[in-house]
Amino acid sequence: MEKQNLTEISTRLGESYLAWGRISKLDGVPRPRRTEVYQLVDKLFEIVYPGFWGRPAISKGDTPRITTENLAIAAEMLTKLVVQAQSFCPTPPQGTKYSSPGRVVADFMERLPDIREMLLSDVISALKGDPAVYETDSIIYCYPTTIAVTTQRLAHELFRLGVPLLPRAMSEYAHSRTGIDIHPGATIGKGFFIDHGTGVVIGETTTIGDNCKLYQGVTLGAASFPHGQDGLIIRGHKRHPTLEDNVIVYSNASVLGNITVGRGATIHGSVFLTQSVPPGCTVSSTPVELKMKNKCMAIGRGFIPEFEI
Amino acid sequence: MEKQNLTEISTRLGESYLAWGRISKLDGVPRPRRTEVYQLVDKLFEIVYPGFWGRPAISKGDTPRITTENLAIAAEMLTKLVVQAQSFCPTPPQGTKYSSPGRVVADFMERLPDIREMLLSDVISALKGDPAVYETDSIIYCYPTTIAVTTQRLAHELFRLGVPLLPRAMSEYAHSRTGIDIHPGATIGKGFFIDHGTGVVIGETTTIGDNCKLYQGVTLGAASFPHGQDGLIIRGHKRHPTLEDNVIVYSNASVLGNITVGRGATIHGSVFLTQSVPPGCTVSSTPVELKMKNKCMAIGRGFIPEFEI
Amino acid sequence: MEKQNLTEISTRLGESYLAWGRISKLDGVPRPRRTEVYQLVDKLFEIVYPGFWGRPAISKGDTPRITTENLAIAAEMLTKLVVQAQSFCPTPPQGTKYSSPGRVVADFMERLPDIREMLLSDVISALKGDPAVYETDSIIYCYPTTIAVTTQRLAHELFRLGVPLLPRAMSEYAHSRTGIDIHPGATIGKGFFIDHGTGVVIGETTTIGDNCKLYQGVTLGAASFPHGQDGLIIRGHKRHPTLEDNVIVYSNASVLGNITVGRGATIHGSVFLTQSVPPGCTVSSTPVELKMKNKCMAIGRGFIPEFEI
Repeated sequence: MEKQNLTEISTRLGESYLAWGRISKLDGVPRPRRTEVYQLVDKLFEIVYPGFWGRPAISKGDTPRITTENLAIAAEMLTKLVVQAQSFCPTPPQGTKYSSPGRVVADFMERLPDIREMLLSDVISALKGDPAVYETDSIIYCYPTTIAVTTQRLAHELFRLGVPLLPRAMSEYAHSRTGIDIHPGATIGKGFFIDHGTGVVIGETTTIGDNCKLYQGVTLGAASFPHGQDGLIIRGHKRHPTLEDNVIVYSNASVLGNITVGRGATIHGSVFLTQSVPPGCTVSSTPVELKMKNKCMAIGRGFIPEFEI
Repeated sequence: MEKQNLTEISTRLGESYLAWGRISKLDGVPRPRRTEVYQLVDKLFEIVYPGFWGRPAISKGDTPRITTENLAIAAEMLTKLVVQAQSFCPTPPQGTKYSSPGRVVADFMERLPDIREMLLSDVISALKGDPAVYETDSIIYCYPTTIAVTTQRLAHELFRLGVPLLPRAMSEYAHSRTGIDIHPGATIGKGFFIDHGTGVVIGETTTIGDNCKLYQGVTLGAASFPHGQDGLIIRGHKRHPTLEDNVIVYSNASVLGNITVGRGATIHGSVFLTQSVPPGCTVSSTPVELKMKNKCMAIGRGFIPEFEI
Repeated sequence: MEKQNLTEISTRLGESYLAWGRISKLDGVPRPRRTEVYQLVDKLFEIVYPGFWGRPAISKGDTPRITTENLAIAAEMLTKLVVQAQSFCPTPPQGTKYSSPGRVVADFMERLPDIREMLLSDVISALKGDPAVYETDSIIYCYPTTIAVTTQRLAHELFRLGVPLLPRAMSEYAHSRTGIDIHPGATIGKGFFIDHGTGVVIGETTTIGDNCKLYQGVTLGAASFPHGQDGLIIRGHKRHPTLEDNVIVYSNASVLGNITVGRGATIHGSVFLTQSVPPGCTVSSTPVELKMKNKCMAIGRGFIPEFEI
């Protein structure tokens, strides 16, 4: 292209940057690099699943040294990212203020052993729930549920600690790799397993009990949003479902609104649910009548009259 | 493996390359590298969202120099890719011919400031539409809607300019990262927001008005394809829906065929729609009867008789 | 963070590694690196689609040399990965034992020319089935169906040869990039095309005939799992559907259980199917009654009375 044309476009863009500053950030403040967020997540995976993620082999004797080393690296990465995230989003949500990065990082790191206890229960649930696998190593090595649920459990801790930007960036990293979109705000009990997973959406104020199982395409979503007098959506409201313990939701079901699905209930595939369900119940749709008609006798193996089932 | 066995397989493959040339390209003509397509998209994101994508910090004073630099880089990358794409796909669709790469690149680059105006409206719509966010920075930083819709707006310009291969490669880059599949041919008004997004499909001849909102799993698709006398599908036909302004389509709804959803209409979740909808209407399915039965009294908190709701 | 705090956390993690050894692998045995699995898949794509994947240009004269070279590289990569996978998962499924890596690799490599014949048929089916494309080059270059189905055909061979871990890691690589989740165990005939594809799930014991077509969001899944006396799921059972030749399943339909969809049958969008379908039939849901009501007359272009369609 002609240099002159480029300069003209550059000038028009420069005006646009000033006019629409909301989508231009020209204050020279460095934002957290996405790649560094992803590296942090990968390093945390190495810490919680040693031998399965990160360096490809680790022996018992080396573990203390390597673990301490990894913790120091993770703490340093996280500190840098928290500082940057707080500068990048200088205004905390109304009525809150940011904790010091040092405090956040210390609180977060201390949670890692407890998180590991949750992860063990998740892996056991996957083994129990998936007939296509006979051992847990491959679940940890390559199942999307491991990526999505582990990332959410890590992001959730940062979310609780009021860290801006990073929890969502972490969960979007998992979403991008798995098609599973779990808001870092969701509260999830132990033994959680998502099979296949693509298309799963779990909203911010969802609560999930212990030993629940979801399949691909399940939405745990909001039914409607209350709006304030200013016409804007009121935020922070409990608007997503509560699943009690031992609930199973089969593929492509939608569970919407601040309803409760009772302990041990089962929601069948493609059910569209907007009301609470008592414990122990199985919910299915009355089968929709299916119509079959013979499309093409030449293809069929004989004459099939039009009929309904 | 034995060298001899490898040579035998190589010979068989060589025969296969010649016999089935459609899936082997042995003319020595370099194809556009996928990684360079992705780098172009990333560079364009840096240009339209400075400070949010690309280099992690930029200050007002540096903006003119860096913008001009980035534009020159992007123009050079795009020129190379357009030349390669035209060589790689030497036959344009029937009745058309390729413009000169220089013309295409100049026309494309000039559109960038106007595209930014659309992107601002998209970001504002996301803020208005998502109760889980309270500022726009994180929307630009990590929301899938930003990746998918911005990429489509860029790819759409190249599609309109008749560039082969690249627009689709760009939209598949976004599809891969977000699960949102928007054909570069779709025409989309300002203020467009897709929440969550995994599983969204928007077909080639779709038209979307201003300030529309879609949720995960929504298909704006074709109901059927007309076939020509040669038995092949007729291409280029308007076969996807038109959404007028201010339409909302909730999760997992399917809107199929060349129908019109009128201004301000709302399509509820999981609705399967194959007919036009007048303006201002809300469309929902008559609730399917749900059957509940007590699966296991041992799990429930007491006896729940079988009942229907 | 204080060094002392890090040491304390490290100690707690060390105890956790020993206590919950299922999610820690401290035996010093190197696992197959995920990045090397992905590089293997990419190299195999270069071999089966020369000129479309891998090096950006290849001419007829160079083909024999480059092909032999690529085969040798792929064989070496695969050998290393098979050895590692067998060490990483030392216990084969009950009643089976692992073949020697050399045998596995030789058997796999010999299948490549035949696999190419399948891939050609897949690409032709995509051209016939997608009205948005007019040539096959872009299908091979960037369509998700190409990534997902080709990867499955490769992974399926390793699955048949009893290789642990790798087939699933390969299919999860494709799943992550496309949203299409095809178990490596599924048996798929020639001429297979998946349009759009996000959310497609095809289970382990599925059988698909020749020239079938699926759209986004289709599940070919299990309806229920039989459990053994130990309360655990019985594995390896035929629990997924069989599609005969020339079957089309439209978007978001669920086809569940060990049922047969007969030759030439068509399953319409969003159908929930749990019973077999005779050949040549078209299956659709009786349309659910839609309710429309006027949400806001101010938005509509006039008064639209509440009505049902």
